[in-house]
Amino acid sequence: MFIARLDAAISRCRAPAIVGLDPHLHRLPRPLRSRFEGLVGDAFRRAAAEAVLEWGVAVLDGIAGVVPATKPQIAFFEQLGSAGFAVLEVLCQEARRRDLIVLIDAKRGDIGSTAEGYARALLDDDGPLGADAITLSPYLGRDSIEPFIARCPDKGVFVLVRTSNPGGADLQDRDALRVAGWIRAWNEGYADLGPVGAVVGATVPEEAVALRAAMPKAMILVPGYGAQGGSARDTRPCFRDDQRGAIVNSARGVIFPAKGLEEAYDSDPGEVVRIQATAFARDLRENLHDS
Amino acid sequence: MFIARLDAAISRCRAPAIVGLDPHLHRLPRPLRSRFEGLVGDAFRRAAAEAVLEWGVAVLDGIAGVVPATKPQIAFFEQLGSAGFAVLEVLCQEARRRDLIVLIDAKRGDIGSTAEGYARALLDDDGPLGADAITLSPYLGRDSIEPFIARCPDKGVFVLVRTSNPGGADLQDRDALRVAGWIRAWNEGYADLGPVGAVVGATVPEEAVALRAAMPKAMILVPGYGAQGGSARDTRPCFRDDQRGAIVNSARGVIFPAKGLEEAYDSDPGEVVRIQATAFARDLRENLHDS
Repeated sequence: MFIARLDAAISRCRAPAIVGLDPHLHRLPRPLRSRFEGLVGDAFRRAAAEAVLEWGVAVLDGIAGVVPATKPQIAFFEQLGSAGFAVLEVLCQEARRRDLIVLIDAKRGDIGSTAEGYARALLDDDGPLGADAITLSPYLGRDSIEPFIARCPDKGVFVLVRTSNPGGADLQDRDALRVAGWIRAWNEGYADLGPVGAVVGATVPEEAVALRAAMPKAMILVPGYGAQGGSARDTRPCFRDDQRGAIVNSARGVIFPAKGLEEAYDSDPGEVVRIQATAFARDLRENLHDS
Repeated sequence: MFIARLDAAISRCRAPAIVGLDPHLHRLPRPLRSRFEGLVGDAFRRAAAEAVLEWGVAVLDGIAGVVPATKPQIAFFEQLGSAGFAVLEVLCQEARRRDLIVLIDAKRGDIGSTAEGYARALLDDDGPLGADAITLSPYLGRDSIEPFIARCPDKGVFVLVRTSNPGGADLQDRDALRVAGWIRAWNEGYADLGPVGAVVGATVPEEAVALRAAMPKAMILVPGYGAQGGSARDTRPCFRDDQRGAIVNSARGVIFPAKGLEEAYDSDPGEVVRIQATAFARDLRENLHDS
């Protein structure tokens, strides 16, 4: 049961935190970067994929035990083609070995047999990635989400509701509440938190209040913390009164070095990630709720 | 220039047709299927990927010269993990070698550096796939589409506007015209057809009339023909008065055998695909426009 696993991991780490695993190639530690800089085409992708694997294992070592979950952004792996996809397969296994919940940020949305294909690719335990949960995009409607809901509650899904980018309002100004209504209905049969979550950005706190109320049983994944400008306080509207029901994502602020830590990161990225992940978890612990 | 390449290919084949390259594993020719049936996990994925490669080359041989373009659905490859992605890389090359335009049905939609990652993965010529065009999903707003528009007009994009599935209306009843307005604006600077296309299903002809009028310079990709219930006649509203501006997709009706052709397909899938692709192109030629 996805929600039970996630809840247990959050309790163990005492922080509703998730760390984005986003290999921006130009920000990898210098010694790893030097292995693919200047290469092109297939040689570039193979060398970069090897570097990403080594970096990814260091990041997972750094966050294991500190935060409950990790969120690989699949686009950063796909840009390296099959070599990148193979690295993601290994990193998903490595994350599980470290007791990290794996949520793949895929924002997929398609219908029928195609949706089934994505579900097998991303979620199924006998598939290549076997993630605990994925993100989905709702533009194609409810029947595009249902093949994934069929994997619940063992697995979880997070449907995009209100994103934190400038264009987020272009359609979501009208759509967010409608999608929230679907999510509420899908979670109806569950006593407490259900397996159908929502993505609601930390940069739109006033809308977050309404969306939180519209989906009382949804786990909310909150992007926009840290590098994107949101603070722990900004994410408060996404939590329920019982201080549960949301998980806050940070990527760049944890997985790449803060000013002054660049050299330390070049020689031991895992250690720098551990320091920054610990600070992230502490910030949530201290500032999410009034004590 | 994507539109010029597509136009030339359509003229050469005398049919605005595109064939979906969707490897439904259980429908592959029996001799290929027998190579992976009963296997599981990684062994299954490797054997199935090899079978898909052989099948895909046969399909490309069957449609080359008959239709102008092919549309691989990336989910069917991703379900086989990195082995499947590697097969898609090869099939994109093989399609180009046969002068087929490659449109990857990915329905991606993400922001900033993530959108850049997908653009590199799918479109860029020095990337793993190097497709001519891709499909995109608009839920995250205009800034999620713009990184792909930056690849135009050399490459093309098709934004989901109105899909043919039952849940298509869930959000698109209100969103379709809004997204159509964006597409119109993006194509504004082009004298004739622009590189920003739209996906409009053949099963909603009355809406297609309004959407066609709202985006006079958009190439419309029309799914829903054949197996999904639409006829050549149903796709007429997607065309402009000059009989241009749309391309009709068929997958199952071309790439898998019609009743009675199963045995022929098991022994020579490329030949059966050629017969069915020829019939598809002829149907469009004869029934799209009053002569």
